[in-house]
Amino acid sequence: MFKTTRRVEFRDTDAAGIMHFSVFFTAMESAECEFLRSLGLGVVMPDLAGQIAFPRVSARCDYQSPLRFEDEYQIEVTAARIGGTSVTYDFTFTFGQRAIAVGQMTSVCCRMSSDGTPTPIPIPESILQRLRDS
Amino acid sequence: MFKTTRRVEFRDTDAAGIMHFSVFFTAMESAECEFLRSLGLGVVMPDLAGQIAFPRVSARCDYQSPLRFEDEYQIEVTAARIGGTSVTYDFTFTFGQRAIAVGQMTSVCCRMSSDGTPTPIPIPESILQRLRDS
Amino acid sequence: MFKTTRRVEFRDTDAAGIMHFSVFFTAMESAECEFLRSLGLGVVMPDLAGQIAFPRVSARCDYQSPLRFEDEYQIEVTAARIGGTSVTYDFTFTFGQRAIAVGQMTSVCCRMSSDGTPTPIPIPESILQRLRDS
Amino acid sequence: MFKTTRRVEFRDTDAAGIMHFSVFFTAMESAECEFLRSLGLGVVMPDLAGQIAFPRVSARCDYQSPLRFEDEYQIEVTAARIGGTSVTYDFTFTFGQRAIAVGQMTSVCCRMSSDGTPTPIPIPESILQRLRDS
Repeated sequence: MFKTTRRVEFRDTDAAGIMHFSVFFTAMESAECEFLRSLGLGVVMPDLAGQIAFPRVSARCDYQSPLRFEDEYQIEVTAARIGGTSVTYDFTFTFGQRAIAVGQMTSVCCRMSSDGTPTPIPIPESILQRLRDS
Repeated sequence: MFKTTRRVEFRDTDAAGIMHFSVFFTAMESAECEFLRSLGLGVVMPDLAGQIAFPRVSARCDYQSPLRFEDEYQIEVTAARIGGTSVTYDFTFTFGQRAIAVGQMTSVCCRMSSDGTPTPIPIPESILQRLRDS
Repeated sequence: MFKTTRRVEFRDTDAAGIMHFSVFFTAMESAECEFLRSLGLGVVMPDLAGQIAFPRVSARCDYQSPLRFEDEYQIEVTAARIGGTSVTYDFTFTFGQRAIAVGQMTSVCCRMSSDGTPTPIPIPESILQRLRDS
Repeated sequence: MFKTTRRVEFRDTDAAGIMHFSVFFTAMESAECEFLRSLGLGVVMPDLAGQIAFPRVSARCDYQSPLRFEDEYQIEVTAARIGGTSVTYDFTFTFGQRAIAVGQMTSVCCRMSSDGTPTPIPIPESILQRLRDS
């Protein structure tokens, strides 16, 4: 489990005066990147045969309570399901004691060809190990 | 059922060379707004007692195939489930014959107080009727 | 001179209830792309020796009056100065008769190496001709 | 003078593999907010007669060198010109020793009516003092 903190920036808000619902998805992605960096991994990793990346196949968010400009909120990231070729992350957003949202994203391990076409491959053992130990 | 067309703008892309996964959510919202406008409705509507709005409680997207800069894609919107206080929209993204993504968003009908606090209320009959006829 | 129309989408707004000042820059870029498409050109163009692109060196906007959600506004694009290696576009934003903003962007013609490093080159004659005739 | 640090997030990038030119403007705004917070001020401030805000009238950026995904860059903010009703901020972007961009934004002190209409007013003395001492 990994925790990080973000602040609602002015561009994150909308005319309803709250953080726009789409911003939760970029916040999840940034929290995932921070989590992977903390494990010595990346969302795009070079290996001997080229590049390994984890394109998303699914993303969702359930909203419980809004965030406003300058609110400093917490995101908890967990690698909830680690399959042979995919990882599902769970995200919990809180603002102090208040529940804000829960989200989930599933990414598939792929070898990227030089023109950017992804081919799913088993997650390399070294990556699996770090995710399982997280 | 309602159909609209959008083009991938340069700001919609990311360093992987494809439309960023979060942009599907703003595209769904814009398609929903167009759909409601086509019915003479809005995402925020004044009524005798103040304002009625439809804040989202849930949003998800499953990705099948990427979009690239300048691709002109189609979005189909359906009011799939119309409950007493909520509406669930289904979205289908296609690029020519190619399946791109399917999404879903659920919004709850709320009266908005002057400070922006939402209170769920039954969807007014006049709105229900137009959604059901769509 | 080229004219196009855009509508303020909900994600374009901020907590002040108006189109966020940064969105004028993505709107200028999209108007530039449309303008170039109308001339049979692109912001990135393949040629015999690889790729030609026009990275920006400068962008500015002066704001006169705000835009709100769902406002349909006009953008006028002019290739105001066409130099040996650069192009400066002028943009005028209006909403009906109301002046909204004026903007300016300067791009430099570059050959892009395979790793994305830009080297300034003279604008090819075929491109110059179409810009001058616009 | 005020300094802050940001990291290029994945959503900040575009298909050219670099931080999109419009993101420099949201980064300037966020740096301005941090700067004002450090002085005990805000971009929107309540006072006895309602609300004081600083809508922008002008923004510009000159680009020297690109930023890539995960680059951690510095922004320096200076209140370069403090007039009777307006403030002009200068911004300098650097990545280590490398010059990235310079920017400028001018904001006008306004009283905001309850419907969001801005009326320019002289900057209150208490705010002037803190900006001059910064």
